[in-house]
Amino acid sequence: MATFPKTLPYLLLVLSIFLISEGLQQQDSEKKLQECYQRCEKTQLEKASLEHCKISCQAEHGGDVYQEERGERDYVFRKERFVQRLRTEHGTVRVLPNFYQLSKLLVGVSNYRVSVIDLKPRAFLKPHHLDAEVLLFVANGRGSVGVVDSESRNTHDVREGDILRIRAGSIFYLANKDSNERFIIVKLLNPVSQYGQFKEYFAVGFQQAYLQRFSREVKRAAFNLKAEEVEELFGGQQQGQQQQQQQGAIIRASEQQIRSIRGSEGGSSRPSTESRGPFNLYKKRPTHSSNRGRLIEADRNDYQPLRDLDIQVTFANLTERSMLAPFFNTESHKIAVVMKGRGTIEFVRQRREGEQQESEKGREQEQEEQEQEQSEPQYERISTQVNEGDVYAVPPGIPIVQIASSSQNLEVLCFETRAERNQRIFLAGPNNPWRRMEDAVKELTFGRRAREVDEKLSLQKETVIMAGPEEREEYPLSNIMNFFGF
Amino acid sequence: MATFPKTLPYLLLVLSIFLISEGLQQQDSEKKLQECYQRCEKTQLEKASLEHCKISCQAEHGGDVYQEERGERDYVFRKERFVQRLRTEHGTVRVLPNFYQLSKLLVGVSNYRVSVIDLKPRAFLKPHHLDAEVLLFVANGRGSVGVVDSESRNTHDVREGDILRIRAGSIFYLANKDSNERFIIVKLLNPVSQYGQFKEYFAVGFQQAYLQRFSREVKRAAFNLKAEEVEELFGGQQQGQQQQQQQGAIIRASEQQIRSIRGSEGGSSRPSTESRGPFNLYKKRPTHSSNRGRLIEADRNDYQPLRDLDIQVTFANLTERSMLAPFFNTESHKIAVVMKGRGTIEFVRQRREGEQQESEKGREQEQEEQEQEQSEPQYERISTQVNEGDVYAVPPGIPIVQIASSSQNLEVLCFETRAERNQRIFLAGPNNPWRRMEDAVKELTFGRRAREVDEKLSLQKETVIMAGPEEREEYPLSNIMNFFGF
Amino acid sequence: MATFPKTLPYLLLVLSIFLISEGLQQQDSEKKLQECYQRCEKTQLEKASLEHCKISCQAEHGGDVYQEERGERDYVFRKERFVQRLRTEHGTVRVLPNFYQLSKLLVGVSNYRVSVIDLKPRAFLKPHHLDAEVLLFVANGRGSVGVVDSESRNTHDVREGDILRIRAGSIFYLANKDSNERFIIVKLLNPVSQYGQFKEYFAVGFQQAYLQRFSREVKRAAFNLKAEEVEELFGGQQQGQQQQQQQGAIIRASEQQIRSIRGSEGGSSRPSTESRGPFNLYKKRPTHSSNRGRLIEADRNDYQPLRDLDIQVTFANLTERSMLAPFFNTESHKIAVVMKGRGTIEFVRQRREGEQQESEKGREQEQEEQEQEQSEPQYERISTQVNEGDVYAVPPGIPIVQIASSSQNLEVLCFETRAERNQRIFLAGPNNPWRRMEDAVKELTFGRRAREVDEKLSLQKETVIMAGPEEREEYPLSNIMNFFGF
Repeated sequence: MATFPKTLPYLLLVLSIFLISEGLQQQDSEKKLQECYQRCEKTQLEKASLEHCKISCQAEHGGDVYQEERGERDYVFRKERFVQRLRTEHGTVRVLPNFYQLSKLLVGVSNYRVSVIDLKPRAFLKPHHLDAEVLLFVANGRGSVGVVDSESRNTHDVREGDILRIRAGSIFYLANKDSNERFIIVKLLNPVSQYGQFKEYFAVGFQQAYLQRFSREVKRAAFNLKAEEVEELFGGQQQGQQQQQQQGAIIRASEQQIRSIRGSEGGSSRPSTESRGPFNLYKKRPTHSSNRGRLIEADRNDYQPLRDLDIQVTFANLTERSMLAPFFNTESHKIAVVMKGRGTIEFVRQRREGEQQESEKGREQEQEEQEQEQSEPQYERISTQVNEGDVYAVPPGIPIVQIASSSQNLEVLCFETRAERNQRIFLAGPNNPWRRMEDAVKELTFGRRAREVDEKLSLQKETVIMAGPEEREEYPLSNIMNFFGF
Repeated sequence: MATFPKTLPYLLLVLSIFLISEGLQQQDSEKKLQECYQRCEKTQLEKASLEHCKISCQAEHGGDVYQEERGERDYVFRKERFVQRLRTEHGTVRVLPNFYQLSKLLVGVSNYRVSVIDLKPRAFLKPHHLDAEVLLFVANGRGSVGVVDSESRNTHDVREGDILRIRAGSIFYLANKDSNERFIIVKLLNPVSQYGQFKEYFAVGFQQAYLQRFSREVKRAAFNLKAEEVEELFGGQQQGQQQQQQQGAIIRASEQQIRSIRGSEGGSSRPSTESRGPFNLYKKRPTHSSNRGRLIEADRNDYQPLRDLDIQVTFANLTERSMLAPFFNTESHKIAVVMKGRGTIEFVRQRREGEQQESEKGREQEQEEQEQEQSEPQYERISTQVNEGDVYAVPPGIPIVQIASSSQNLEVLCFETRAERNQRIFLAGPNNPWRRMEDAVKELTFGRRAREVDEKLSLQKETVIMAGPEEREEYPLSNIMNFFGF
Repeated sequence: MATFPKTLPYLLLVLSIFLISEGLQQQDSEKKLQECYQRCEKTQLEKASLEHCKISCQAEHGGDVYQEERGERDYVFRKERFVQRLRTEHGTVRVLPNFYQLSKLLVGVSNYRVSVIDLKPRAFLKPHHLDAEVLLFVANGRGSVGVVDSESRNTHDVREGDILRIRAGSIFYLANKDSNERFIIVKLLNPVSQYGQFKEYFAVGFQQAYLQRFSREVKRAAFNLKAEEVEELFGGQQQGQQQQQQQGAIIRASEQQIRSIRGSEGGSSRPSTESRGPFNLYKKRPTHSSNRGRLIEADRNDYQPLRDLDIQVTFANLTERSMLAPFFNTESHKIAVVMKGRGTIEFVRQRREGEQQESEKGREQEQEEQEQEQSEPQYERISTQVNEGDVYAVPPGIPIVQIASSSQNLEVLCFETRAERNQRIFLAGPNNPWRRMEDAVKELTFGRRAREVDEKLSLQKETVIMAGPEEREEYPLSNIMNFFGF
């Protein structure tokens, strides 16, 4: 996989925090820190300066806060990290930087990208192709997706919950069919040209479209037209004063144009062997459903393209104060996008002496630490709040807990890689792994009688989604504390 | 994939060009530049100094020529870039450097190598093995290829157009069976040991052969001979004065020796399920054939080994002034070798602010640019002439046009990767993708009535291979201009 | 694959040796060097200082010895190179650093790791999971392996020669069932999270276990217990004074606990299609067996998991003074672990002008050398002694000879990658490749009459395992000389 040299400024930044934060004391400076943060949020609109601001807060009030901060930065990427790829007054396309660029620890998903398309009512995203495999998920609204390949065209009407795969290089276009709602799509991309990078190719439709860039002679020869005609045709000029308004990759369609972009039926919930139509996740029977929430999973058996891509798509809706039981994936990297609401995630990773700086270091040092002699593994907790639009990625083997906030449900869309071989191993609840071990193993592992162990472990009756911490006292406070890893 | 740090001198070189060429004016200094180039070609025999010479030409007469030059350097590799791997008076083996070393943008084919074997009449390339999968294409002449693996030996008589796969590690040897013609083979290699690198292992046949390097004791033990005997045997000394002449990896065989190296029948055009014999591309029915030229394609269904390698082999012969319609591959990297003739290729790639220097920069900056906020994608044309022996590589998604010169046909051999999933999407001609779109989409995309769009797009009646620009006025001039990207 | 920047100190070290050793003369300073080495071994216990010591020996007595030394370091890794990952008084887990970190030339196996588990009598390694696929080989003793995944638990009784695959993320534990013997396991790991790296996750069983690191609130919610209870439970405290003694990942079990950890029958020698139980290598009929030794091979047809992993497991037992015939693998990297005894390995690799420093250089230079113009390939011998616990890795295409010492058998366990497509090509013995070539080819290659070649090559009647050099005179001396590549 490609590697990205560490960015010096970033390194210096972090080192400075280290130096500064040495010898600071921690006793309940949390509240001060919180306020400091809030000042930052209020005053600093630009992401980079915001981070600076927060970091100086830490230096001032921080204790080892910076450490959790760092850990968080390795796996959790705020909405603000997305960068704009396309934008007109009618909509935007935003994309999260390459995962490996975001965190060396995510090398395992460095050839995946996450992108969000947001179209205003009746907006139309012009035909283009990408040098990447695409998996669409309709997060909001309803619209049509037209897909053109070397032989055919398929237009699909899609709505919330639909999953649709678009092959690398297929020319596609999107139309928001609603006159009031926004049409929002989350895309998982898997580049086929340059590792971890993709580009969009608009052949026609505005002055900068790529067919315009061929030499006049080639254009004339290819289309058997006068060069001027070609330029006019492919430049997509409108008659008269409409012209300005309608330039660009995303434009607004008329009522009647929208109506006439009409696809086959939307995604069904029946297993679809043909890889063309969409599949609707919300229509599928949940793996788990209770008053605490639901978990819906679509895999290779539901939707053929998920087999080719070896991806599982999971949607979790946790009702407020509920918690997805602690688990880890055996083979999958989990790429999670917070669709709605707010919550806390907490996970634990192995940590070695001096590994704090890992993500700021070159591979080499990372390795050396990795190989240090030691007698026992050390682990550290990473704990943070997540909000709508945030993305987090969790490598295989790492145990994680996801908790809805006390005020809102938490809705999370997950793409899980290496889906075919993956198992999800829950660490709590009736199906916990220890109950399946021999009594002697329980004794040796827990250092007490097997019967005792069984009793204790049998107290949690709920599976998959269970009551979260906030349904117990002392949490509201600790919630904040949590955030800072105490 | 492995990464190669940027070479400082190269970077300095390019930067200097940047600085120098700033503020230069372009008005028809082309002719001067041409002459300057020709002076270089005449005076500078050594590649490196040749490039220096040309670059100073650009600094002198250049305008933004350097820019197209750079773009060109990312994808097009002149015959001179090949380096020698083996050479005797009877023939040579030359190899193109690793694609990723040549251009960071070609990371997608960085584990492929292109090599050319050129044997004089009756020349014999001694038995050896490579740590790479090999796909041979016979470009000129006729000969025999002997392949020895752990159980068997197969000798194949091959001639122009034959494709033959040789498994990694199989010991093989080549004989030019003709007494006048050169025997020329183009090899696509897919290394199995070190990424993007391969080595050749000659066990015996000259003093430096590898069996010679084992310790005397091991040689004696392994072959149950006196060490001297082994050395003499594997050193391949000839009796008497022949000795000198016959040293080395490529020697000359006698009439009768050549005759007695005789294989099974040459490649058939029938689909061959058994992966041993060769397959003759020229015998296959063309995908397209007209007075403008022919396009022949061999895939997994024609020749079993192409399935294992997931490679498609394509041969295009464009008659003078004809053009292969603009298209892009959805998944394949196209590795093209110009077999005969001369032509112009033109393609368009996405370009971002400040991306000019991309290929000279480390990954990091490349990424940062890649992620820059922007409202619309920008594209740039890369346009250049290609001649016999040049190689060019085109990543998936990038639209390309290939045009035969006014004086000669253009014959191009292409290897296309990820063949199974690939589609070729033609952008002009009766099968253009827009004609398949809804009328409303045509209107929205082209900004004019669908009927109009259809009319315009229906004027090009030819498919695949069509009349090139030169069949129209103003081209001869623009052809040169093209070269410099105007 | 990830790349590791060259370590400057190391580079300087090596360069200095270069400079120093220039102009030194070689005439039989070997004996002096030997003694110098022995002094080092006696005085320097720590690996790094040992190497320094040896290197200064070379500087003093060395000639081009340093060169062989370097070559050796690229492929052969002494027992001392293993680093400790876990350790208590009852056992250890040790792991060899990433192969790519050890040698750039081994990039082809950079996502494999080798680890050794060594448990004292009745020792118990607590339940944990790894973010890597695991292939176990029982090198010594007998014990039980419990494997728990999302649905089931399987406990297997294993003994010497058993191969067992454990899926990435499965929770497993080990018990040494013998009261006197050590239970030693060699592990091949194939990481699934970070390239070439893996981590171990202990959920419970000691204070640092990862479940302990979740916030108190999460623990309470997940297990429906008071936080203190959870901590006590998962901390694995023992009652009373046992506590100290039983802390850590590896503890000692009681007679009766050990007895009650009992698995299904051990590995059978029958082809097992189900991927759960172990397979016993020693019970399989050898590929070759004679008074010179035996070669046993297990592949995808013997043990289903070897198909998924595309690994072949080979066990070679060479009786003293015997030699495994020179051969090379066509596609496999061979990862060899010396299980018992002592021997010499000798192999030959291609070498290019100035390539001495390759492994100390960044990729770039490496490439440039790689591409240097040349008329013929050069090869160099690498020759060294190997002892119990050493690991060596040999890339495809490279011919190698393995020889048991005069005093002891040599037992080697090998993991061979890309097993499905691999062929082993023997270069000596009745099945040598040249005998299958046409007479004319023999003449051209060996420069003498085919009949002569056949005669000479037919003198070695033995196959696979043959008499080694020491069964002839002059070896005892040359054995040492060999070590230094003369």
